[in-house]
Amino acid sequence: MPSPTRAVIQDIVLPPFDPLNRRAAELRAQGHRVISLGQAVPYFPPPEAAMQAARTALDAPDVHRYATDPGLPTLRTALAERLAAMAGTRIVNDDVIITAGANHAFTLALATLVDPGDEVILPGPYFTNHQMAVRRQGAIAVEAPVADRESFSVRWSDIQPYLSLWTKAIVLCNPSNPTGAPIDPAEGARIVKEAAARGIVVISDETYMHFVYEGAHWSAASLRAWRENVVVIGTFSKSFGMMGWRVGFLLADAAICEQAIKVQDEMIICAPAISQIMAEAAVRESWNYPASFHDELRTRRRILADGLSKIPCARWTPTSGGMFTFVQIDGCTDSTQLSNELLDVAHLVTIPGAAFGQSGEGFLRLSYGYAGAAELVEATERLRQFFAR
Amino acid sequence: MPSPTRAVIQDIVLPPFDPLNRRAAELRAQGHRVISLGQAVPYFPPPEAAMQAARTALDAPDVHRYATDPGLPTLRTALAERLAAMAGTRIVNDDVIITAGANHAFTLALATLVDPGDEVILPGPYFTNHQMAVRRQGAIAVEAPVADRESFSVRWSDIQPYLSLWTKAIVLCNPSNPTGAPIDPAEGARIVKEAAARGIVVISDETYMHFVYEGAHWSAASLRAWRENVVVIGTFSKSFGMMGWRVGFLLADAAICEQAIKVQDEMIICAPAISQIMAEAAVRESWNYPASFHDELRTRRRILADGLSKIPCARWTPTSGGMFTFVQIDGCTDSTQLSNELLDVAHLVTIPGAAFGQSGEGFLRLSYGYAGAAELVEATERLRQFFAR
Repeated sequence: MPSPTRAVIQDIVLPPFDPLNRRAAELRAQGHRVISLGQAVPYFPPPEAAMQAARTALDAPDVHRYATDPGLPTLRTALAERLAAMAGTRIVNDDVIITAGANHAFTLALATLVDPGDEVILPGPYFTNHQMAVRRQGAIAVEAPVADRESFSVRWSDIQPYLSLWTKAIVLCNPSNPTGAPIDPAEGARIVKEAAARGIVVISDETYMHFVYEGAHWSAASLRAWRENVVVIGTFSKSFGMMGWRVGFLLADAAICEQAIKVQDEMIICAPAISQIMAEAAVRESWNYPASFHDELRTRRRILADGLSKIPCARWTPTSGGMFTFVQIDGCTDSTQLSNELLDVAHLVTIPGAAFGQSGEGFLRLSYGYAGAAELVEATERLRQFFAR
Repeated sequence: MPSPTRAVIQDIVLPPFDPLNRRAAELRAQGHRVISLGQAVPYFPPPEAAMQAARTALDAPDVHRYATDPGLPTLRTALAERLAAMAGTRIVNDDVIITAGANHAFTLALATLVDPGDEVILPGPYFTNHQMAVRRQGAIAVEAPVADRESFSVRWSDIQPYLSLWTKAIVLCNPSNPTGAPIDPAEGARIVKEAAARGIVVISDETYMHFVYEGAHWSAASLRAWRENVVVIGTFSKSFGMMGWRVGFLLADAAICEQAIKVQDEMIICAPAISQIMAEAAVRESWNYPASFHDELRTRRRILADGLSKIPCARWTPTSGGMFTFVQIDGCTDSTQLSNELLDVAHLVTIPGAAFGQSGEGFLRLSYGYAGAAELVEATERLRQFFAR
């Protein structure tokens, strides 16, 4: 019989992480010193409180059993309190579902809120996985390019032209992957309110909420009326160096959570028990742990800015969040090819801007989350030499 | 704004596990000795090899990092070898994706193969989560009642009347949750072949593959042409007592896996790293671990059969797989109410057959996976007294 896979899935393109990493591994095997600016991950391990909780949990039978669908009640309560303090609004444990990471939380949100055929607006450049999930769901991903190509801060005026009768959701990524741009609170509030007035949901991916280096993180849940149409998603992967543990969360009004729990039940039953136990320890005892790395991350960001400033064709205005440099390369019309060349010639892993939508073409995403200061100095020097050829 | 949640999600009903467990907790708090026959989980912990692997993994940095999307290569290879030996067919690591449990594997299969509007045939009584997932996906769940209400063995003749031009998939659950019935190999082969001839996929949930007490488990992957249209899903939750660790697998031709990996990437990135490390140890060193509990499970099944034989209105012909007794109660037309009464009056948690589709009405599902022999003796005595009132 012919291939039974859905046409829409065949049509979806994986981001180029795997091929780039495979090629990097080949080059390393040949003795080359490859520097990776490709990974959107922090360099630090989980806090000791989380590790201690994991070691203790291994000796108790509960760790082998299912947690309740929405997550460990004690974790939900602790997290609700932290998020309430951060957002300055009332948040209770019934407003929180513990998921298997932020991507999974995004899937829960889509499955609960978006029907096949609905349109979902993604300000571009967007996080690739958002676009993939929208399309897999049978909905239509509408890219709304961000007009300000220097700050990359999303405005209502970017989104408005792409509204239609079929718009069901707007996705914010704040701070943004791939640009590192936070959303201006006034613009964020306007987007949420204009959306609510039209019966449109705002799904706010705040994966990098703990990585805002100037000023405070603005959460879409900080609006008085957030419950009406806001779903926030987040993760412990980046804040607490827990990528492999697959644990994150969805924050929404309890009435939305009540529906999302049905999806949670049939899709995954619950997030991994041990990961929830670790997350609870981190949330209770180490909520400010990620902030202890801000100075180091600011230093890395400055090294990249300094290095890029010496490259005539590279343009980047530092953004104040995330762990990303989204750098424009003058004259670049094929960032995928450029990224491949950079790997082969300069032995640098970079992510082509085109992986983040049409509005990312001509850019490269460089992460300063994993590579250390010395590596970043060398990486920018390799970039300079590459472009000076 | 009005509720933004999808009508189809609002319309989906959670199985009654949570309300039953909450009521059981209330009764326990009042001092009653509640016996639960509700949980579809085994009584044993993970094998020592898996626990040792977990302890060691906690000290290595890799456990905090993402695994590759389809899973740890060493686990995929080890599992492919075990499944190939079980099925007697060629299976390689590219045919296997490690998922966050069997439910998640089912979601991956649906997302990869079934479009919104497609019809999916579920022989009834079905596993509730299958029906929920099909509907959440925007597809149509078609219940095909199993004609043989004694063996509950699914036959092609059960399915054939429900075929339509829109049938995209047939779901098998082998051995079945909730009936414990295995599929007859000849009938299974016929279902797969007839489906292939019509361009229909067979998704075979073999969660209880390690729990077949008479004869060997028949896998849908054992057919020579299985790659054409078979997807097998499985889990380490039941075989190795690892429910809380959320790790399972999808087995399909590499061309289907290649598409499913896109869904994996955007939905969850990868299964939890530590759970994969534990699963690898279990697969390599303790593949026959579940078989060591067969004698005990057979004993429990016999206790239930003996006890039920003393209850005039209860009818059950023991099935040879899973950990379930799907018992018909003469005259019962509302199994949900009966289940509630049994909890309140006899302090027994049972699952109403109606939770598994219309063809389950009039039945109760009793699990012998968790409750021990003494508890099962008492449970059947309580049932006898309840029905003798």
